[in-house]
Amino acid sequence: MRKALLFRLSKHGGHFGPNFGMVEATIALHYVFNSPVDKIVYDVSHQSYCHKMLTGRKDAYLYEEHFDDVSGYSNPEESEHDFFNIGHTSTSISLASGLAKARDLKGESGNVIAVIGDGSLSGGEALEGLDFAGEMDSNFIIVINDNDMSIAENHGGMYKNLKLLRETDGKAECNLFKAMGLDYVYVGNGNDVTALISAFESVKDSKKPVAVHIVTEKGMGYEPAEKNKEQWHWCMPFDPETGKSTVNFSGEDYGTITGKLVMDKIKSDNKVCAITSATPAVFGFTADKRKEAGKQFIDVGIAEEQAAAMASGIAKNGGKPFYGVYSTFIQRTYDQLSQDICINNNPVAIAVFAASVYGMNDVTHLGIYDIPMMSNIPNLVYIAPYTKEEYIAALDWAIEQNEHPVAVRVPAAVVSDGKKVTKDFSKLNVYEMTQKGNKVAIIALGSFYGLGEQAAKEIESRTGVKPTLINPYYITGIDTEMLESLKADHSVVITLEDGVLDGGFGEKIARFYGSSDVKVLNYGLKKAFLDRYNAADVMKENRLTPELIAEDAASLL
Amino acid sequence: MRKALLFRLSKHGGHFGPNFGMVEATIALHYVFNSPVDKIVYDVSHQSYCHKMLTGRKDAYLYEEHFDDVSGYSNPEESEHDFFNIGHTSTSISLASGLAKARDLKGESGNVIAVIGDGSLSGGEALEGLDFAGEMDSNFIIVINDNDMSIAENHGGMYKNLKLLRETDGKAECNLFKAMGLDYVYVGNGNDVTALISAFESVKDSKKPVAVHIVTEKGMGYEPAEKNKEQWHWCMPFDPETGKSTVNFSGEDYGTITGKLVMDKIKSDNKVCAITSATPAVFGFTADKRKEAGKQFIDVGIAEEQAAAMASGIAKNGGKPFYGVYSTFIQRTYDQLSQDICINNNPVAIAVFAASVYGMNDVTHLGIYDIPMMSNIPNLVYIAPYTKEEYIAALDWAIEQNEHPVAVRVPAAVVSDGKKVTKDFSKLNVYEMTQKGNKVAIIALGSFYGLGEQAAKEIESRTGVKPTLINPYYITGIDTEMLESLKADHSVVITLEDGVLDGGFGEKIARFYGSSDVKVLNYGLKKAFLDRYNAADVMKENRLTPELIAEDAASLL
Repeated sequence: MRKALLFRLSKHGGHFGPNFGMVEATIALHYVFNSPVDKIVYDVSHQSYCHKMLTGRKDAYLYEEHFDDVSGYSNPEESEHDFFNIGHTSTSISLASGLAKARDLKGESGNVIAVIGDGSLSGGEALEGLDFAGEMDSNFIIVINDNDMSIAENHGGMYKNLKLLRETDGKAECNLFKAMGLDYVYVGNGNDVTALISAFESVKDSKKPVAVHIVTEKGMGYEPAEKNKEQWHWCMPFDPETGKSTVNFSGEDYGTITGKLVMDKIKSDNKVCAITSATPAVFGFTADKRKEAGKQFIDVGIAEEQAAAMASGIAKNGGKPFYGVYSTFIQRTYDQLSQDICINNNPVAIAVFAASVYGMNDVTHLGIYDIPMMSNIPNLVYIAPYTKEEYIAALDWAIEQNEHPVAVRVPAAVVSDGKKVTKDFSKLNVYEMTQKGNKVAIIALGSFYGLGEQAAKEIESRTGVKPTLINPYYITGIDTEMLESLKADHSVVITLEDGVLDGGFGEKIARFYGSSDVKVLNYGLKKAFLDRYNAADVMKENRLTPELIAEDAASLL
Repeated sequence: MRKALLFRLSKHGGHFGPNFGMVEATIALHYVFNSPVDKIVYDVSHQSYCHKMLTGRKDAYLYEEHFDDVSGYSNPEESEHDFFNIGHTSTSISLASGLAKARDLKGESGNVIAVIGDGSLSGGEALEGLDFAGEMDSNFIIVINDNDMSIAENHGGMYKNLKLLRETDGKAECNLFKAMGLDYVYVGNGNDVTALISAFESVKDSKKPVAVHIVTEKGMGYEPAEKNKEQWHWCMPFDPETGKSTVNFSGEDYGTITGKLVMDKIKSDNKVCAITSATPAVFGFTADKRKEAGKQFIDVGIAEEQAAAMASGIAKNGGKPFYGVYSTFIQRTYDQLSQDICINNNPVAIAVFAASVYGMNDVTHLGIYDIPMMSNIPNLVYIAPYTKEEYIAALDWAIEQNEHPVAVRVPAAVVSDGKKVTKDFSKLNVYEMTQKGNKVAIIALGSFYGLGEQAAKEIESRTGVKPTLINPYYITGIDTEMLESLKADHSVVITLEDGVLDGGFGEKIARFYGSSDVKVLNYGLKKAFLDRYNAADVMKENRLTPELIAEDAASLL
């Protein structure tokens, strides 16, 4: 199985360490339990490759032409052995508890098993689930796959307890799982298939909730991955002999750009602190940089709620918190954004990464929903820059100002025009007119500003009308003065945004002009859960090309 | 202090049990610590009345004319002793950890204290905070106010551990707080001011994170509240002699209506189960009804993430889950709605209560943000009925169907027209034209349908034009066929919704008509964190009266 994993991963990329560590446990689970009558739910499900091999999907790991038969996560459309599309962490216990409850309501039997890594345990949903499970009075098995790692190292007090349990062969009286009301079984070598089978057999058909704590080695069986666990959590295609990546990136990325800016701030101001919820690499904070930042860097572990609320407290007490987070994961902290940060209007700076149709394209990791989710919360200032220079200026202001919670939407690609940005971001909701034309105005938000430029050219060459072009910057408010002024000599206003249209930016412009003679065309994405899509196709389907936009505009002129 | 509490609460209403239980602890906290240099953060902050008395706000509890000087929650605008506007549970540890972190960044000293009730501990944010705190290496004090109650009884495995700790005078080796990495101090009588002072003095200026577990009696000092803790968690004005409410409600409410429907379903189908996250009364499940429902009722405790994700699992495995929740609290489960329920398209039925400008009017409990938060998530069907009959029909369908996640927005007030509802809700996004007119069409959503009727009459009497009236029902989709047909003989379309306009329902209509000649007027609320507002004033400010709507419409005709 490891050979098959290596074959696929070296050619295709994917989650490496989690799968190499779970080979024996997956075999033991399927040996002892009768899937799908017995139901196994994998947390994050990035460790479910071996499960897929054992449930009819081995070809996707053996033959290159079958790679695309499977997703990187559990997927009910692929197999009756998968119960949910899962990609976010910390959900398995709660989801599985529902499967168990339905089983009991229907008076059926069978085992329900949640498999969760130690890193995912720190998430609020997992802890709520653990607490709930401790009160159940029927079969429910939680396998804790403890490899002493999150994506990076673990953070949180509970990991001292896991360490104590490992050091005492599970015998320490002080035990997080017992404190949550669960029975407890310990397997010191979670890569020993015999020991695992014996442990799983001991809890099979248990009528009480039980935690089975297994200690595995992340990346086991491939030396580079055993030695550098963080780097090998996930991989791009690589040479299996050397472990070296076969994909070359050149040029800058926003991780590096952000990391440099934030590190400079840290060095010059001891009140600045950088916060991550277990994905420090997203803003370029590799292990050496984390060490360099010292106490001014905080990894809260997988705990987005803690990250957001703590940032509010830091800001309230005079610190300058910066929180860097993926678009798909900021969803995990809506209430903290609203209640802890925005109601209190505390000056937290947030950078939202991979917020684009060009971001991650798995259905569980879409980056096109942050605008409707965040931008309708009062007090938040959400800014969408286009160029690298605009991004740096916006983020710099976000960190230094102390008036508002400010989020900056990291552009999809690094576009640099070398222009000095003189914009005063503290004057909220002031848009920038970058080209004055007439009849048609294009308001092109953030990453789609470049598309706006192209569409403007296309419209001009097709109709002879030179459109006005506007960089709005602000997602969270409209420049009523500028919009009002457009009425004088414009009959069509076009909006472009790199996200779903529903609840987004363009609709606010449509509302503004609703009672006027100005016609509004909103471009963005249709509301849908896209999966493993081709971005160019999706752009075209949503008429997001200069030609199609020009075609629509021409028909209205 | 209890006399002052009784005076205010009997005349004004408010949180009763939490404050009566915290009198001694609040005195001890202020005796030992030096507020506001030492910073105390109260979870939910519904137990902060005594704190307010001791920090310059006693008049609000002694004199009726000063009642309105204070809010029911901690409030930085009132006093430098309050650090956050807080109203949702489980936030105190995370917020306070930020205050502590900023103190350390600045190299300052002083104690930071989070005060959290046992009921609030089960929330994901609190557990993330507890875990984070366990790794801190400086002063941080968490006071666990354990009165063995949430709003109703506690639920979750951790409460077995709290019980064990109470029974062993805090000496049991298995200890949730120690397992989270914290030091631990136990106070068996948390209503004994001397014992409390001694415990707080022992941890004052501690350089390590520590949990102080104090056992208090909810409602202590007022016999009716000691005897019936759930009923006296919060009270309306009452006669202090008898404890009987001085406010009379007559007529039906949606708690009772929902409870009856759900109980009928439970009785006739063992696959139905009702879920609450610690607020069972919101759908009429008083203690007797909870007992009657048996295993078909689940209180997950304060754990909205668990509630939503578990509901998805129940639906996946053939159960029929119903989750009843306040609009303001469903905010706590955005990612579970999106990832656990909607990506998997599992048929969970949700009723969203107090979702209206006429709902709760504290800034932390607003019910006007659920539409932008929920309705832009794909796959979700969100329905807004107007009458009692429509509500029952919609909720009945939501529970019985197995195609979609369906949420029903509970109307603001019970309006009954006795009409049999024949609408087939499974035909998604089909609006209902209830009056055919011309020139003007009013699309009046949910609770505001009545306002739409009145506005239609007002427009007709003012202009002679008889407007078309539409009940759209569906918040999550538009009836393109009907909207298209309106273009033939309508020049103005008016939308009304009981929530903020930004990211809401009306903007989708404005986008639809953006490129047409139809003018659109969207009515709803301005995006803002309103606090202790008068609903009639807010309605008027947003031009939400029949007269103002008619005035606007007339000017466009």
